[in-house]
Amino acid sequence: MESTKNKYVLVIHGGVGTIIKGNMTTEKEAAYLETLKISLFEGEKILRNKGTAINAIEAAISVMEDSPLFNAGKGSVFTHEGKNEMDASIMDGASLNAGAVASVTHIKNPISAALQVMQHSSHIMLVGDGAEKFAKQQGCELVDTSYFYNEERFQQLKLAQQNNEVMLDHSGENNNLEGNIENSGRKLGTVGAVALDIHGNLAAATSTGGMTNKQFGRIGDTPIIGAGTYANNTTCAVSCTGHGEYFIKNVVAYDISALMEYKQSTLKEAATYVIHKKLKHQNGEGGLIALDKKGNYVMSFNTEGMYRGVVTTDHKPKVEIYK
Amino acid sequence: MESTKNKYVLVIHGGVGTIIKGNMTTEKEAAYLETLKISLFEGEKILRNKGTAINAIEAAISVMEDSPLFNAGKGSVFTHEGKNEMDASIMDGASLNAGAVASVTHIKNPISAALQVMQHSSHIMLVGDGAEKFAKQQGCELVDTSYFYNEERFQQLKLAQQNNEVMLDHSGENNNLEGNIENSGRKLGTVGAVALDIHGNLAAATSTGGMTNKQFGRIGDTPIIGAGTYANNTTCAVSCTGHGEYFIKNVVAYDISALMEYKQSTLKEAATYVIHKKLKHQNGEGGLIALDKKGNYVMSFNTEGMYRGVVTTDHKPKVEIYK
Repeated sequence: MESTKNKYVLVIHGGVGTIIKGNMTTEKEAAYLETLKISLFEGEKILRNKGTAINAIEAAISVMEDSPLFNAGKGSVFTHEGKNEMDASIMDGASLNAGAVASVTHIKNPISAALQVMQHSSHIMLVGDGAEKFAKQQGCELVDTSYFYNEERFQQLKLAQQNNEVMLDHSGENNNLEGNIENSGRKLGTVGAVALDIHGNLAAATSTGGMTNKQFGRIGDTPIIGAGTYANNTTCAVSCTGHGEYFIKNVVAYDISALMEYKQSTLKEAATYVIHKKLKHQNGEGGLIALDKKGNYVMSFNTEGMYRGVVTTDHKPKVEIYK
Repeated sequence: MESTKNKYVLVIHGGVGTIIKGNMTTEKEAAYLETLKISLFEGEKILRNKGTAINAIEAAISVMEDSPLFNAGKGSVFTHEGKNEMDASIMDGASLNAGAVASVTHIKNPISAALQVMQHSSHIMLVGDGAEKFAKQQGCELVDTSYFYNEERFQQLKLAQQNNEVMLDHSGENNNLEGNIENSGRKLGTVGAVALDIHGNLAAATSTGGMTNKQFGRIGDTPIIGAGTYANNTTCAVSCTGHGEYFIKNVVAYDISALMEYKQSTLKEAATYVIHKKLKHQNGEGGLIALDKKGNYVMSFNTEGMYRGVVTTDHKPKVEIYK
């Protein structure tokens, strides 16, 4: 067995969808790739300095939450009522401890609030006003809802409402706003990260702004441990993105772990089976990033593209968008 | 393989805990057993008349929700702020469709709202005001919050607050209210049901009022598909009860299914491993009821007791409380 001593790996994603090169401007493409690189850089800095997987994924995700490009934090899509409701979760593979927040509207970095829940609450999942009250007590930065306002996202809402549809993120299959990757590529939101640190610990986290035009306080798979996020040192760390309802009913993140633990599948076999067979068969669009205890990783998706990146101990970050 | 043609099974639970016979009055014991019987009766009526597993478990759970004895619906415990916040979920093993509501405060029967989400929404999980708005549109009965007021439960809150503790249900290890099973037995709330109908379909559902003195919009495992509830015709139907955080991080309901599917465990082996080894090892108190496609069932718990009952095609309902 290959030694993982002093080895670290960080894998990130920024959502999946029919992201097609022909629809992407050079500038937009460069902006996505640059932000993914910064995310990897901030996470890797922690891992290289002997930090923990948990802290590395929080840092990596915070970069994507602070960017308007991704459907999480600053870039969150709008609900039917014109609000931004965000969800996030994080899990520590060493202890199986986990934290999650859902339907929060004022927390600048939901992933940090999820980490506070994990570290300083006896609970795992907090929602709405209660979650915000807790986050504030723990020193998380709260912002006015105007912080999350984004003209492009607001136009997506208007369009979704005209078409009377719920969009899974910056969806755009039926719209005609031109020159706009957000609207010309059907993209399923969420950002996420998984890491292995030099201490041999795995961790996973996911953050999202949900679905454009979502109603009725809908929560997807992102804040649900086992569905959108799962980590266990004995198997793997997983962060999902896609049509959340399919990920909930298939318990996707934990399913990867269960296939490894109970069926002795490799990480790759497990991811291929779940994403390309089980979900594909149900027309469940999405993907996931996952990492096992030896540092093997997968970035698997059944859509046209997934914003993604990886950096390991060789210090050569790689970022990609298309299939 | 034994034929399941025309065979039906309904299993219910009303929560686990250190329910000790010496602490229970004859009247209270009789009241619990009687309500469990009525729950079985209402559910079985549907199964016997060729109804679906889904409708049977909704009916069985509604009886327990309408009783002040169980921590769900009418009998829900109080949050730190003196409110009753309820969660419920339901899953259909034939289609893997599911529905859940969380943090609702006005819905008389949260299990019916979860079923409406499953049948009439493209989403699976709705929370808070949004969930209530949807439930109302679907014709669910909404009631004033005073409907859920219960003096006994309110005293539990006061006591929990004096002791500065969060109680998992009608917990009472550290209290001194006498002659009151609710307060003299540490009990972990939730009601649930699993059924196999004569069409060969499995279904599972769970409903709860959460934890006494819970804060910050805490959500436990009950409304989480994979954690508190799971059903799949190819494996089993499961409803859990206990210390929710342990059930979330161990993805307990789906774990039973995964052990059967990937490791070829029997239902009994899977339940024994998860409840008596995995959870017990972590000091995770709780139990579950589960049913496989052949009609084999388990009622497994690592606490002193679990309110529970079962009825099959032989039409002889059995109800029990203690170990």
